[in-house]
Amino acid sequence: MYDDVVAAARRIEGHAVRTPVVEISEGLFLKLETLQHSGSFKARGAFNRMLSAHVPGAGVIAASGGNHGLAVAYAARALGVRAEIFVPEVCAPVKVAGLRALGAHVTRTGAIYSEAAEAAAKRAAETGALQVHAYDQPDVVAGQGTLGLEVVEQTGGVDTILVAVGGGGLVAGLTVGVRGGARVVAVEPELIPTLHEALKAGGPVPVGVSGVAADALGATRLGALAYDIVSTVGVESVLVTDEAIEAARHALWAEHRVAAEHAGATAYAALAQGVYARERGERVAVVVCGANTDPATLV
Amino acid sequence: MYDDVVAAARRIEGHAVRTPVVEISEGLFLKLETLQHSGSFKARGAFNRMLSAHVPGAGVIAASGGNHGLAVAYAARALGVRAEIFVPEVCAPVKVAGLRALGAHVTRTGAIYSEAAEAAAKRAAETGALQVHAYDQPDVVAGQGTLGLEVVEQTGGVDTILVAVGGGGLVAGLTVGVRGGARVVAVEPELIPTLHEALKAGGPVPVGVSGVAADALGATRLGALAYDIVSTVGVESVLVTDEAIEAARHALWAEHRVAAEHAGATAYAALAQGVYARERGERVAVVVCGANTDPATLV
Repeated sequence: MYDDVVAAARRIEGHAVRTPVVEISEGLFLKLETLQHSGSFKARGAFNRMLSAHVPGAGVIAASGGNHGLAVAYAARALGVRAEIFVPEVCAPVKVAGLRALGAHVTRTGAIYSEAAEAAAKRAAETGALQVHAYDQPDVVAGQGTLGLEVVEQTGGVDTILVAVGGGGLVAGLTVGVRGGARVVAVEPELIPTLHEALKAGGPVPVGVSGVAADALGATRLGALAYDIVSTVGVESVLVTDEAIEAARHALWAEHRVAAEHAGATAYAALAQGVYARERGERVAVVVCGANTDPATLV
Repeated sequence: MYDDVVAAARRIEGHAVRTPVVEISEGLFLKLETLQHSGSFKARGAFNRMLSAHVPGAGVIAASGGNHGLAVAYAARALGVRAEIFVPEVCAPVKVAGLRALGAHVTRTGAIYSEAAEAAAKRAAETGALQVHAYDQPDVVAGQGTLGLEVVEQTGGVDTILVAVGGGGLVAGLTVGVRGGARVVAVEPELIPTLHEALKAGGPVPVGVSGVAADALGATRLGALAYDIVSTVGVESVLVTDEAIEAARHALWAEHRVAAEHAGATAYAALAQGVYARERGERVAVVVCGANTDPATLV
């Protein structure tokens, strides 16, 4: 799997942004995935999926009204392929407009996400379009893992990487990408503990989805691939409150002028809330994984 | 002077942020000085001034209700010295509060900036406090120049660097720092053409100050040091409209999730407006020099 991540890095070079790292205090790094194309790390997996597989004339198809949908639409436009995005009927009109502005064909269907996803799968079976999963697909996981390679290279090595978890594609890829060279700490909102509950239960289980970061971390269960990887390698799991996420997000802007969405501030919240206690001299990288937010709410 | 910039880089290491560079498309780099301590490049010069000179018990003193004042207050707090900041009476209460939150002693005096600056100079003569000028001081210019060293190192070299100009401390230091290794293009709002008019007149002359970037680029004339340097080395000067600055600022957020103040988007505006025409294959770095802005106005 490590080789898949290395291959993905070669594949997406020049397509995804090699996002910068900033050392905000001695030995404390932020990986600014906020600056990734489409505003979140999801572009890595989307590009890798589309560049790994044959994309038929029917193009690509995905279900997501959030960051994954934007990433697939962005990557499809960049590669000149057709994109169909299925979103639930409750999807905010502004998000649909954003997807359409990127040239995607948007279908609103189903009361909840899983119904939209089912409709997308059905449609893919009919048209032959290439499905791009939000997290539970090897090419997608390998693409997200390129972020791990970069963190190691750009920091010259760290002891620990803090990363937020929803469906688990990023934490899984990252864990493979750092290949034991750093401890990976998975940070989740208390209100969406997909990984935390999976580790307790011995496999992915459905969890409640609510709170401030639900728009981007709101998977109802951890992906199977992610569970396999993190349970094999051993990833530390911590939970943060919504209050800590809000405070971390405001601090990232007020103190460091980093504009992050709630999911993007979730990993940083673990340090701020103290559920992850950094040791003296410990080199820590925090992944700020997305910036698709209304900037008016940063203050 | 180049040696002074190299010495400044050594001096401010670990105090100022080595801000990251991001390649947003092939050969086009943004130097994200938005992520500097205190939200703008001014912290470089402030730290270098305070670390170069003896700071007496009376501390440091500066006149500025904007980025320079914030930088001096930030650096003084970091170094554990007293800071007095003089601001004109019209200075917004929120800015005064920001300075006080950093521990500075703030004096509101004079109807306009130059009166506050005069009062600060008089006070410095009385107390013996170290004056930190906003741009027209060798230690300040050398500090700002460290940004030029970083751009060259971080990009592996570029053909051209676009940078906004107010009093000229940054463009002067940067020009020295790149030592002829890149062409420097000075970008100014049409409504505050300090450098443009100085080059035409053969020396700094007073200009009108207005428009969207006046809060950070609103010097009434170019600094004498800056004029000496840029007129000796030869810096290209271009002007941008306020409309182009606004559009560039919105594009930096919408397309790249970079939160910049108007002054911070001014250099980028030269590309967007087309007053600087990038050639095919030309490697260009754009300095995004500050982020002290209300994020609600990014969209």
